[in-house]
Formats: sequence, C-alpha cells, structure tokens
Amino acid sequence: MSGTVNFRGYALRELNALDRLVGLLSRLPGVGKKSAGRMAYHILDGDPSYARLLAEELAGLHQAIRRCGVCGSFTETDPCPICSDSSRDRSLICVVERAQDVRVIEESGEFRGLFHVLGGLIAPLEGIGPGDLSIGQLLNRLREGKVRELILAVNPTVEGDTTALYLQKLLKDFDVEVTRLASGLPVGGDLEYADRLTLSRSFRGRVKL
Amino acid sequence: MSGTVNFRGYALRELNALDRLVGLLSRLPGVGKKSAGRMAYHILDGDPSYARLLAEELAGLHQAIRRCGVCGSFTETDPCPICSDSSRDRSLICVVERAQDVRVIEESGEFRGLFHVLGGLIAPLEGIGPGDLSIGQLLNRLREGKVRELILAVNPTVEGDTTALYLQKLLKDFDVEVTRLASGLPVGGDLEYADRLTLSRSFRGRVKL
Repeated sequence: MSGTVNFRGYALRELNALDRLVGLLSRLPGVGKKSAGRMAYHILDGDPSYARLLAEELAGLHQAIRRCGVCGSFTETDPCPICSDSSRDRSLICVVERAQDVRVIEESGEFRGLFHVLGGLIAPLEGIGPGDLSIGQLLNRLREGKVRELILAVNPTVEGDTTALYLQKLLKDFDVEVTRLASGLPVGGDLEYADRLTLSRSFRGRVKL
Repeated sequence: MSGTVNFRGYALRELNALDRLVGLLSRLPGVGKKSAGRMAYHILDGDPSYARLLAEELAGLHQAIRRCGVCGSFTETDPCPICSDSSRDRSLICVVERAQDVRVIEESGEFRGLFHVLGGLIAPLEGIGPGDLSIGQLLNRLREGKVRELILAVNPTVEGDTTALYLQKLLKDFDVEVTRLASGLPVGGDLEYADRLTLSRSFRGRVKL
C-alpha cells in the first residue's frame, strides 16, 4: 500500500491510511468530509470482514457489470435480464436518462415493458447534443417495428423537456405513440408547498374523475 | 466473487454485483438504500481506478491502523504521532469518548496537549459500566505525576454527565485539576432555537466581559 493517493489531483502528499480512506469516501455523491470521517471510523471500529467484503465487491465491480447492448442499462449478462425476459411487453419502451432510473422504475413495479437508456439529456449549455445520446440505437429498435408506444420517463426539467421535444419531433414519422410521464403534485404532497410550475402543470394535466 | 453475501444475516440469497454493493454501502452510518444506490451507480459510472483505490484502502485498513497503546486512538504507529510528539503539552490530557473525537478536536487546532480515549461512556441502561472503559489506563497515566489538568471533552448528554461525575469523584484524591468543555449556545446559533437545557447551562456558565 502506497502512502500517497494519486487520484485526480486529490491530495498528492503523504497521508495515513485513515486520511486516504476519508479522502476517497468524501468523493462519493452526497458525502462530505464529516460523513466520510464518520463512515471511515465506522468501518474501522467494525468487523474487518465488512471492510473485506466491500473491498472485494469494489475491486470486482467493473469486471462484473457491463452495459446491456440492447437497452444500455447496467447488467451482468448481455442482453440484460429485462431485455431477455420473454414475459415482458415488447411493444412498450420506457426511455430514461440514466441506467439508475431503470432501477427506480423497476422498484415501483409499475412498468412491465422494456427500457432504453439515453445516457444523458440534451443540454446545449453543457455541450451535450442529440449525437451524444443513444438515439441512433433507439431508432434501430423502433425500425424493427414491434414497438407501439414510447414512454419518455425523463425528469420534468429544462433538459428533460428539451429532450422530450426533440424525440417527439424526430419520431413523428414513426408509427409509434410517444407519451411522457405525468407531471403534477407528488402523492402525499401539499398544495401549499407546490411551486408555480408544478401547479400549472397539474392544472393542465388534470384528469376527469 | 461469490454470488451470495454472508455478512451478518444480510440477504443470503443470490444477488448481482450491484445489489451486493448497494447492500453493503447501505450499512454505512447515515446511508439509506437510496443513497447507497446513488453511490453504487456513481462508482460504476466513474473511473474504475477510483473503485480499485477504494478497494485497496478498505482491504488494507485493519492491517494499517491499530490502537495507540498509550491513548487508545487509531494510529499507524504505536505510540501514535500525538503521544510521541515531544512538542505537545504533556501536562494536559483531553479525555474523549471515541477515537474519532480526537480527529475533531485536532482539526479545531484548539488543543496542544495529549488525549485519552475512554472507548465509550458510562450507560447503566445499556450495561456499560466504568469497568468497560479505559479508566484503569487513565489512572496509570495520572500516576506518572506529570499531568496537571484533565479536560473532560465528553458530550453534554446524560451519559457524558454521568461519566464526568464519576471521573470527577474518582480523581479527587489525585493532584490534578479536572475540567469539562463549556456547554452553551453554539457559535452562529440563535437563542430562539436553543433548547431549555442548553439555555440553562449557558446562563449558569456565563462569562464576564
């Protein structure tokens, strides 16, 4: 074990093992220096078998998991279990921004079709155009002619709206219905705390009872 | 890599590498299932060298770090750099509950003496008595006769108060001053949000300007 961490310019000086671990943990999303410290001490205080198991999983992660050649989600087998599940509805494709969105939707149990991971959203200000997303692969899947509906499950943000609009225009010559997840008040939410845009969308998308 | 995680009854069924990683990460303090998922995808999406480095640090952690034989804090060398630093004030010992408290106090830069880690606080309801703490070692250090002041830096909680009271009584025959960190309003805090006990302590501990 070297005494120096050479990871992307992070603290190139000599550090002890604990400081190196804290430094690495604090690069995780939502983890600041304090919580990284708490985690490191928790690991150190705890059963060494936990640290060993976590180390093994991390070391093998990128070998074990790849991208599905069909939908682009993370998987151990290619095609992924969802794409190769014959019981799923192949006439429905749910288009998501990132691979983790597949997990969120699968956990809701609401959707029994297939997925397509765009790998991002159109964001001109960040230099991300349609060519940077897996839109070509999506068109190839649609050309097979089995897809009846494309559900755009992109976030209700400016980038999500832009991407949805782009796909809607692009797909108008395809014989496929393009829909988008409803936007409105979250269940259990409170009118008082809803922002103007969410309220406006929930009015426009109101449903008959 | 086995497909099953055998860690303390956690999900003994077949899981894929990603689920196993999420399961392990969600055992860290302050990390729920959602943040563990976010972390796992962040690691997967990112540079494999990060996962490798983190794995290495975790695998080597318990070999690299031990307890200091003098003060009980985590260290790579025994005695620890603080105990063996001749420039520190050996007449002052700051008594803390856990090894991580040493780090917090060191980072404040406020204290230039030595430390003593109790390894817990007296908590009769949880079955933790004085015999479970490193109080014997503390008395041995005091018997060397170099210590002038013992600063109890235990949390202002019921367990902290109990432990402070116990130590105060135990040490009244030693020629050593026993003090405790001031309790009161946090800097930048607001009277409006201070609880009754904190306010009461800040009144009792008021200082002359």
